[in-house]
Amino acid sequence: MQQTSYSTQSWSSPASLSTPSATDSAAPLSGLQQTFEQIPHTRPETPLLDAIDAPLDLKALTTAQLITLADELRLFLLYSAGQSGGHFGANLGVIELTIALHHLLDAPNDQIVWDVGHQAYAHKVLTGRRDRLGSIRAKGGLTAFPERAESIYDTFGVGHSSTSISAGLGMSLALRYQGRPQTVACVIGDGAMTGGMAFEAMNDAVQQDADLLVILNDNDMSISCSIGGFSRHLAMLWESGYQVDISDEGTPLLRRRPHMQAYDRRKRHSEQRNVPQLEDNLFTAIGFTYFGPFDGHDMPELLRVLSLAKQVRGPVLVHIYTTKGKGFAPAEADPVGYHAISKLPVKEVAKTDSKKDSAADTKVPALKYSQVFGQFLCDKAAQDDKLLAITPAMEEGSGMIDFARQYPERFFDVAIAEQHAVTLAAGMATQGVKPIVAIYSTFLQRGYDQLIHDVALQELDVTFAIDRAGLVGEDGATHAGVFDLAFLRCVPHMLIATPKDENECYHLLNTCYEYQGSTAVRYPRGTGTGAMISRPAQSYKIGQAVVESVLGEDNAPKKLALLAFGTMVATAEQAAKILTSDEAVSDCQVQVVNMRWVKPLDTKLLETLLTQGVTHIATLEEHMIMGGAGSAVNEYLLNVSPAFATSRPAIANIGIPDRFIAHGSQAEQLADCGLDTSGVVVQLQRLLS
Amino acid sequence: MQQTSYSTQSWSSPASLSTPSATDSAAPLSGLQQTFEQIPHTRPETPLLDAIDAPLDLKALTTAQLITLADELRLFLLYSAGQSGGHFGANLGVIELTIALHHLLDAPNDQIVWDVGHQAYAHKVLTGRRDRLGSIRAKGGLTAFPERAESIYDTFGVGHSSTSISAGLGMSLALRYQGRPQTVACVIGDGAMTGGMAFEAMNDAVQQDADLLVILNDNDMSISCSIGGFSRHLAMLWESGYQVDISDEGTPLLRRRPHMQAYDRRKRHSEQRNVPQLEDNLFTAIGFTYFGPFDGHDMPELLRVLSLAKQVRGPVLVHIYTTKGKGFAPAEADPVGYHAISKLPVKEVAKTDSKKDSAADTKVPALKYSQVFGQFLCDKAAQDDKLLAITPAMEEGSGMIDFARQYPERFFDVAIAEQHAVTLAAGMATQGVKPIVAIYSTFLQRGYDQLIHDVALQELDVTFAIDRAGLVGEDGATHAGVFDLAFLRCVPHMLIATPKDENECYHLLNTCYEYQGSTAVRYPRGTGTGAMISRPAQSYKIGQAVVESVLGEDNAPKKLALLAFGTMVATAEQAAKILTSDEAVSDCQVQVVNMRWVKPLDTKLLETLLTQGVTHIATLEEHMIMGGAGSAVNEYLLNVSPAFATSRPAIANIGIPDRFIAHGSQAEQLADCGLDTSGVVVQLQRLLS
Repeated sequence: MQQTSYSTQSWSSPASLSTPSATDSAAPLSGLQQTFEQIPHTRPETPLLDAIDAPLDLKALTTAQLITLADELRLFLLYSAGQSGGHFGANLGVIELTIALHHLLDAPNDQIVWDVGHQAYAHKVLTGRRDRLGSIRAKGGLTAFPERAESIYDTFGVGHSSTSISAGLGMSLALRYQGRPQTVACVIGDGAMTGGMAFEAMNDAVQQDADLLVILNDNDMSISCSIGGFSRHLAMLWESGYQVDISDEGTPLLRRRPHMQAYDRRKRHSEQRNVPQLEDNLFTAIGFTYFGPFDGHDMPELLRVLSLAKQVRGPVLVHIYTTKGKGFAPAEADPVGYHAISKLPVKEVAKTDSKKDSAADTKVPALKYSQVFGQFLCDKAAQDDKLLAITPAMEEGSGMIDFARQYPERFFDVAIAEQHAVTLAAGMATQGVKPIVAIYSTFLQRGYDQLIHDVALQELDVTFAIDRAGLVGEDGATHAGVFDLAFLRCVPHMLIATPKDENECYHLLNTCYEYQGSTAVRYPRGTGTGAMISRPAQSYKIGQAVVESVLGEDNAPKKLALLAFGTMVATAEQAAKILTSDEAVSDCQVQVVNMRWVKPLDTKLLETLLTQGVTHIATLEEHMIMGGAGSAVNEYLLNVSPAFATSRPAIANIGIPDRFIAHGSQAEQLADCGLDTSGVVVQLQRLLS
Repeated sequence: MQQTSYSTQSWSSPASLSTPSATDSAAPLSGLQQTFEQIPHTRPETPLLDAIDAPLDLKALTTAQLITLADELRLFLLYSAGQSGGHFGANLGVIELTIALHHLLDAPNDQIVWDVGHQAYAHKVLTGRRDRLGSIRAKGGLTAFPERAESIYDTFGVGHSSTSISAGLGMSLALRYQGRPQTVACVIGDGAMTGGMAFEAMNDAVQQDADLLVILNDNDMSISCSIGGFSRHLAMLWESGYQVDISDEGTPLLRRRPHMQAYDRRKRHSEQRNVPQLEDNLFTAIGFTYFGPFDGHDMPELLRVLSLAKQVRGPVLVHIYTTKGKGFAPAEADPVGYHAISKLPVKEVAKTDSKKDSAADTKVPALKYSQVFGQFLCDKAAQDDKLLAITPAMEEGSGMIDFARQYPERFFDVAIAEQHAVTLAAGMATQGVKPIVAIYSTFLQRGYDQLIHDVALQELDVTFAIDRAGLVGEDGATHAGVFDLAFLRCVPHMLIATPKDENECYHLLNTCYEYQGSTAVRYPRGTGTGAMISRPAQSYKIGQAVVESVLGEDNAPKKLALLAFGTMVATAEQAAKILTSDEAVSDCQVQVVNMRWVKPLDTKLLETLLTQGVTHIATLEEHMIMGGAGSAVNEYLLNVSPAFATSRPAIANIGIPDRFIAHGSQAEQLADCGLDTSGVVVQLQRLLS
């Protein structure tokens, strides 16, 4: 492999700066993009875009036409956002990049991998899915992320971040091994780059001398959360005033950076510290050939740079600079506030897909579970100065904004770095403080080894507040939090609690926090039953379940116990009402048990139920049946329970079947699994018959 | 926080080089270490060492005495290695560092965190455990790694790598929050540094402006495996000929590096590539203050550098260079071959703790499971050019040396980077090749999210060869592979196979490899029953179990089915023999079933057993009971099985109870869990009674 290199002097000595290269003559074309003030409420006219049914249709367009296409695509995305209410903000920033890539590369032969795929809307539009974009994230519609099953242009499913360089490297190595000369290009954001696996992949790409084009889309994603050494480094590269341009021969060429819009964040960095100027480059240090930073909205420049960079052998990183919400004036003016389309004025025309949310609208004070967690944090922190809280880049999603504001010295946003987040908490706990790790269930999968090896094995006092447990709706299968009970339950020393509603969530968080050891509270996305929080915080008895209700005749021949976990308590109660009012099964008495704890189980209550003559038992959970909470009940009954051995009731484990559940609203997903009330009733009738 | 910095010129211009600082006058003392030619077979005289019962005892020693102490400690470790047969090679390299740290710091008040804790033997000796070192890794003896429960000087348990910076940062932040001024020092090897979480932690340490002293022990650990961009970068720092020294004020000071032994590996790098000279520094790029490289065996220099570095505020990295096996001539001459003490000539006096190994010695051709995997790889690769194989830095441990030699273009050692390893395979699989990921069960915990999100969800054709599944013996709880069935079983699309012996392992690897989808074969550490491999490779029917034997009278009133998974098939057969020859339970017929597959289960066979009138069922697995293979059987029987609903046999799930199993031989660990033959017999008798 030919590795490009350049002398130290060219980095540091102004005397060696080159003049802009000849191809810069195209530069006057840049900056022609329109800026839109409003979201169109009727389908805009997009004649150029309408003719693009596949990337091949981009090949013949001139640079000027590509710029016009960018305007049309931007307008179309804005219109589509207004119609479907999706998250289009990040996508506005990569319109020029998406067009340039599909113009220059030969997809699907060449492989384009989008990291954190919610930047792939423009890609979807250009690859034959223009007319279906309005269906994105809805049941049966386009997925929120690239998905291999959806299109041959979606090379890799990317719901979780930081995977693209690994996946792209795998493609590149497999192609090289087979002697196939296709290009592999990965687009990764600066936020995703903090995930350790991106570093692992860069390390390996250099070892393998792989031909791999990585485009770092530096869009200040992390502006609302972490800064961190990596982000600071990108700021340094910016502030240096220099640019590593690419020569016509594909070699690095240091020059003064042409004018690009500056950002306050960048200035903030230099005020904070005495920052060295371009003396080090992380990417060249690790062994990549680095070019950048370039203006990611300058179409001619992008075309020039990328067409040259894709010819350079070995691992290459092109650093481009883009603006979130680019081309939509309100979003450009407030990139933090306009992170998501849900904050755009057009919201009132957006459809609400979640039945849960609709139902909650009628009860005024319904809190999201993340807000309940946020309130708990603030309340507890006021009483206990040992409380520290950690999030891997999910301050807002985890409901921690108030806490972070009130207790900045006790709030730790570690960036997208789940492995580190967990072990950081373990390290803290060794020093007598009480860390809480706020993490989505699906992302805890990234910190699993650390939870076992660094927390539970050492019996350290760490509380995991596991948000988005269960089915999460529109984000689909990649974000489902449906494995946590199985992967946590087998770990010794862990306590696992599953609150039935917002109030119980508050008190179980308190209970687990107060416990001196490794604990987890798992709660769902969105709102719950609307239960008001009763302060002050209580400590529940660990491992104690609660009989919520007993319905039906006491002398009915069939006695059914519904052992419900978390969100399924409410469903179980509704199902119990239907069952006991149903003439066909009115010979049934139903007890609804709020199990509260998956570990330890309330085995005492189980024995009581059995000795009371329960004839049928159903476990209910919003989790895979395999290995879940019901499985814990099975293990106890079959192995340990003295009463079960004699009474032998029939058992059903109700939960998510052994398949990935596609996107849709949470209610639709639950119905899909038979976990809505009517689905549960059917399963219970089957058990009783 | 005060951040040190220095101008670009001082990096690149020879004119700005400083002369060695005044404290270098101590340098003549360096290099006095003795080199030993042989391992002592009798306890050497170590008068200085014998007086060290705690780090406090090091404070008063002069530099000359510390050098003598290093000699004594080295000799003592060599003697101890000879006695106990442990892995002491890496420890010889950190003797000076360990002494210097304990001389300069104030443990246990100051916190020393050892990454990949098998470098902590010297630390154990100096912290009151000198006389127990011979017991290391044996049941009831010292653990192989630092363990918090073992000593107040063991600040963090570190069996898995790359955790120290996260843990140390957690300590540092907790201490700062509490206003406690202790020093936190992390020692991390160059191999461990490739793990992504180390990068995540560095990123965060800079964000937090944390006072944290990281000592990078660059000991060519990766010489036998990966090189990678990071290792190449360390080589560049070495080859530059420069050193970032630390001034008396704690600021960086570029100078020509004093003489340090050069290594072929370093030369190899510069021959391979046109390597830039010290133009970039990854650590300063990310925001650390960097000092190095220094000679890690030069005691006066170490003392000078570390005493200054611990005063520097903010995140600091001191890069030292050490030699594995330092001071033991045969190991210094062949650092690769002498990676582990098992290759030292003294091996014949070493005790063998593993009963499995002892038993296997009597059967001449017994292969380790890792060797079986290696043979499968080579055999299959010869037939199928689509086969590629990936290891995260475990080429030798996974039995891949022959394969790597025969098929270098199809072998990918990605360094310690489990997350990347899994997604790399997924990327490869998208391009029509068939990757196999060879990974230890305990390390697959690091790639769990990637297995779900990148492999199984996309139904990609990746085979996981899961080594060291079950209890692993002397490495103890940190390395136990006892969660994999629980965390894999709940993932849709996964096939999971558990071979009963070496021959079945070979054919199940073949079966899973041939299957077009996501599969896992889990097999244990060490040797098995000694079963010979019958070539050619077969493809078993997926999900089909085998009745291995039926013992006892056909008309016995009790009919027991032993549903055994993997290694427990042999144990089940032995237990069945004992049970059916036991007069007390001779009224029992026992069928031993080799289940082979955890997913899919052979439910057809289960129905057959039930309809045949089985009265008792026991599941047996070398895995946690919670969520394991037995749990899968429970779920089927209770929820689905028509025959179970009427026949209702009694059930016992036999496996590992809900606790972490301490180190000892594998046989001792199995006995500890009741998973040896006699323990299983007792549990079966309980089921039958």
